Amino acid sequence: MTTTETPATDAPAGSCCVEPAAAGVDAARAQELARVFKALGEPARVRLLSIVAAQQGHEACVCDLTEPVGLSQPTVSHHLKVLVDAGLLTRSQRGRWAYYAVAPGALDRTAAALGSL
Amino acid sequence: MTTTETPATDAPAGSCCVEPAAAGVDAARAQELARVFKALGEPARVRLLSIVAAQQGHEACVCDLTEPVGLSQPTVSHHLKVLVDAGLLTRSQRGRWAYYAVAPGALDRTAAALGSL
Repeated sequence: MTTTETPATDAPAGSCCVEPAAAGVDAARAQELARVFKALGEPARVRLLSIVAAQQGHEACVCDLTEPVGLSQPTVSHHLKVLVDAGLLTRSQRGRWAYYAVAPGALDRTAAALGSL
Repeated sequence: MTTTETPATDAPAGSCCVEPAAAGVDAARAQELARVFKALGEPARVRLLSIVAAQQGHEACVCDLTEPVGLSQPTVSHHLKVLVDAGLLTRSQRGRWAYYAVAPGALDRTAAALGSL
């Protein structure tokens, strides 16, 4: 027997790896990005963010956000808080209503980070 | 008393809302996007995806992925499966090793969806 008969699909004995893996993003950056993506990993939050983004001035009153997503006001407020905490929305109180706006540059920055992974 | 003394920050009685909220993405699209973002909502998965993306040909052997993230092989395999299921990576078996590649266009499509929310 000769080793030339080894099928091409077989891996070399030991390891398949010749070069060390390229670095990718570091642990701290991965954690930062994952936090934002986790906030987006819920359909209701994607809808809420997209509804806010679709408004004139990219800002919406919380009173406009419960009906379109068909959820209770406390649930909507919770989802909005997660988006604020992730840096995707900002919140401002005006009289009895809270207004939510897309954080300037947040979507573009996150999209750019994703596109350059 | 006249109503002209009402502070500007007070909301009008009843509702603050004049226009109905703009639509944003629909429920099905939100679900689809949230599934991808949820897969990315974990630091180890962000690192794994970025390491694969950083390789020549945007492809890496699983044998090259455990050491850089400092996790066990079963844990790495689980995370890679989540990324495959979300459509971000593809998997091919060659001999004893599985190879993972960035799904063509997946990162750009997701980035575009995010940027156009």
